[in-house]
Amino acid sequence: MKKENSAPTMKDVAREAGVALGTVSKVVNGLPVGEPYRLRVEEAIRKLNYQVNSYAQGLKASKTYTAALLIPNTKDPFFASLTYYINMALLKRNYRMLLCCTDFDSRLEQEYINMAQQNKVDGIIGLTYNPGLKIEEHTPFVSIDRSMGVKIPCVASDNFAGGQLAAEKLADFGCKNVAFLRIGSSLSNEPNKRKSGFENGCLARGLSYEMKILNDGDSFDEFEQFLREHMQEGKLSFDGIFCVTDRVAWSVLGILKKLGQKVPKDVQVIGFDGIHVFGEGNYVCSTILQPIPDIAELCVELLLQENIMPKTPLVCLPVTYVPGGTTLDPSGEQG
Amino acid sequence: MKKENSAPTMKDVAREAGVALGTVSKVVNGLPVGEPYRLRVEEAIRKLNYQVNSYAQGLKASKTYTAALLIPNTKDPFFASLTYYINMALLKRNYRMLLCCTDFDSRLEQEYINMAQQNKVDGIIGLTYNPGLKIEEHTPFVSIDRSMGVKIPCVASDNFAGGQLAAEKLADFGCKNVAFLRIGSSLSNEPNKRKSGFENGCLARGLSYEMKILNDGDSFDEFEQFLREHMQEGKLSFDGIFCVTDRVAWSVLGILKKLGQKVPKDVQVIGFDGIHVFGEGNYVCSTILQPIPDIAELCVELLLQENIMPKTPLVCLPVTYVPGGTTLDPSGEQG
Repeated sequence: MKKENSAPTMKDVAREAGVALGTVSKVVNGLPVGEPYRLRVEEAIRKLNYQVNSYAQGLKASKTYTAALLIPNTKDPFFASLTYYINMALLKRNYRMLLCCTDFDSRLEQEYINMAQQNKVDGIIGLTYNPGLKIEEHTPFVSIDRSMGVKIPCVASDNFAGGQLAAEKLADFGCKNVAFLRIGSSLSNEPNKRKSGFENGCLARGLSYEMKILNDGDSFDEFEQFLREHMQEGKLSFDGIFCVTDRVAWSVLGILKKLGQKVPKDVQVIGFDGIHVFGEGNYVCSTILQPIPDIAELCVELLLQENIMPKTPLVCLPVTYVPGGTTLDPSGEQG
Repeated sequence: MKKENSAPTMKDVAREAGVALGTVSKVVNGLPVGEPYRLRVEEAIRKLNYQVNSYAQGLKASKTYTAALLIPNTKDPFFASLTYYINMALLKRNYRMLLCCTDFDSRLEQEYINMAQQNKVDGIIGLTYNPGLKIEEHTPFVSIDRSMGVKIPCVASDNFAGGQLAAEKLADFGCKNVAFLRIGSSLSNEPNKRKSGFENGCLARGLSYEMKILNDGDSFDEFEQFLREHMQEGKLSFDGIFCVTDRVAWSVLGILKKLGQKVPKDVQVIGFDGIHVFGEGNYVCSTILQPIPDIAELCVELLLQENIMPKTPLVCLPVTYVPGGTTLDPSGEQG
């Protein structure tokens, strides 16, 4: 005899809906059934407050409705914003998201990839700097900003076009002598294309340019040294600076203040990313805006799609320029 | 006959370790066994590369080694930092973390709490503004910043002491007439104690003070209006301002600039939280620092502890003052 207060089973749902047990199973597992059957089953599920047992479901259907996100941390505002929008894109599709802040720990990254390979999660979205990861073919993995091999889709902003756009904007706003300041991983990755794009744009628009390239771990003091070397009689020889990230731009704005240079009157500054100090409100500088909500949506779409092969190997999403008070935009608008 | 390449089972581990099957099961499920047995089992697991099936394990042991974090979003830098440190504290203990950015959606919050009540996750850490959540007794739930009832532990900074400390610091640095600016939820919660603490500190140190309290959704323009009303002949009548968060302080610094007031010479500003613009580096203002790593560790400790009753209903962790360039610290140090 069934106890009054025991949890309803799939059988109870079938009885309530007046359908076969297999129909309930199909609905619960997201398989196609006729619309009227689906509606009856869903109503019975609601009425009985039937709770799908995800673990049993995981064993049977090899579906966990869970994806994992590998990201270095959520303290950096770019990573924090990506995490938010990927979480939203998954929750919208009734997927849960395991978050794994890796702090660049390759052992942790590999552990989560193994989970995907063992079907303990349905897939992984990862932003990793680790070229040695072992990802078997057909592992549901979508990479952000870094190509991991032809079978693994990679989603990024159009970094090359972004660099080019920065050069064009500086030229439009009257600059003649510009600099590019970069710090970051020397590994091959998508953001590295900002440099080539910028060079390309400078050449196309006849801007003379210099570059200062630092590696991860180098001190921002080297940017100060570089800029000091380009001062003559209290005046900087550059009238425009493109910084590889808003974070670099933020530091450079501090250095320029120290050197007595007025921004944007004496020197204009463009960053990259589109960071808001408190997650919303003003941008920290004029910048090339990464379309983070679009990147998030596309990562989730590519991860959850089924039977679409071959997967697109690299998708570069369009970027835009936004004013943020560190450039002489003719319209005078401030982001 | 066992296939050469099939995955090793618990039986294989028992054979390899030379122990009973039950001993392997205990080790895998984190139950106590003699140290030499545990070491032998762990070595066998490593040697055979035995992978625990978490779903089967979830069904058997009612342990998922997964906790969920409910947080409004990860775009706000305070939430982003909390998310990072809670993730780290869980990963360190070999727990996975489901992230659920709620955007204040109470339906989503309730769904995750139901998961905990059905043992689909081992527990929930939540920062919620929703007083109507149904949390059954004995649900493993730890609340941040908001008391949810006597059976649910709540972890927060010592917000009262923080408000008091802000008043004391402003007094120490020479202020006589101060203001408190607040925006936020009017629901009863721990951060609301900043106001009472500040009042207390002002009274103890003989500071005259005024308050401007806005509700969530009000425009920051009202702070500008309030400050304008306290200007006489181009001079602000306050020489010190305590802002309820660094975010408010950031806006107020912009307003003060617009009003031609020099910070910290004309007016000193202290915020609350300890936000770094890019997740590290300088603070955005002199501030009362919340001990986020300690909050994270304690939440996880309280969530995962077993058989310790009654759980502590409210823990307020000590805060500290850090200079950030918006106060006249006698030592001249800048955070």
